[in-house]
Amino acid sequence: MKINFKHEKNGENLVIAIAQDYKSLEVLMVAFMNEEALSKTIQTKKAHYFSTSRNKLWLKGESSNNFQHVKEILIDCDMDAILLKVNPDGASCHEGYNSCFFRELDGDKIAKKSYNLDKLDEEDLKIIQARLFNPEDVYK
Amino acid sequence: MKINFKHEKNGENLVIAIAQDYKSLEVLMVAFMNEEALSKTIQTKKAHYFSTSRNKLWLKGESSNNFQHVKEILIDCDMDAILLKVNPDGASCHEGYNSCFFRELDGDKIAKKSYNLDKLDEEDLKIIQARLFNPEDVYK
Repeated sequence: MKINFKHEKNGENLVIAIAQDYKSLEVLMVAFMNEEALSKTIQTKKAHYFSTSRNKLWLKGESSNNFQHVKEILIDCDMDAILLKVNPDGASCHEGYNSCFFRELDGDKIAKKSYNLDKLDEEDLKIIQARLFNPEDVYK
Repeated sequence: MKINFKHEKNGENLVIAIAQDYKSLEVLMVAFMNEEALSKTIQTKKAHYFSTSRNKLWLKGESSNNFQHVKEILIDCDMDAILLKVNPDGASCHEGYNSCFFRELDGDKIAKKSYNLDKLDEEDLKIIQARLFNPEDVYK
């Protein structure tokens, strides 16, 4: 029985990792973990991911101090995705929102228009959360 | 402004797609969508994914009749992940559980033992949901 790090990026073997607020049940973000990130998460009870853009281990909160304290670790049927139930110190999104999923796609409007997902207008997306911090104040 | 189908598998460009029960807020599953799957989801309001194992469009429920009726479509900061808030007709997991995340990893036990994520015992994983159907009865 083993965890299936089957998603590959830049030669790194990864699982998908979703973070969900363990109290509000809000989905906060989704990222990837390599084996090191999952091990560190288990050991420290702070969420670690593998940043596929910076190509390195990423302790969530290392820049923003918005750590995610891990309460439960769930694993899916195929053993290739992890769900972390976390207690977040603050906003989880680097854009300053509580969740990275702070915009809603207006499906009815898009369906009527063109189905062209390459050319979405600002008005097709609605911001549904309040901004909790200004990224420029946090990431210097 | 465009959706970033940046995850690549078998030459297919994909976004991550998470399904969450819009009432209970339980995370049900995670999969991928190509542009066609997202377009069909928007048009039909039934969740469509791209099956990376079968390499084709996948209407969730096409075999099991457990469709996911889409209530909201959220998109993340990087525009490369989708969160569907859905009203599911039945269990979302092909193993017969409501959610694919039906097992909890016992982090404390694993941390004490070895950190070896390649060799998990049955006892390191705890099933935390009731089975709603027997897969053999549904997928024939």
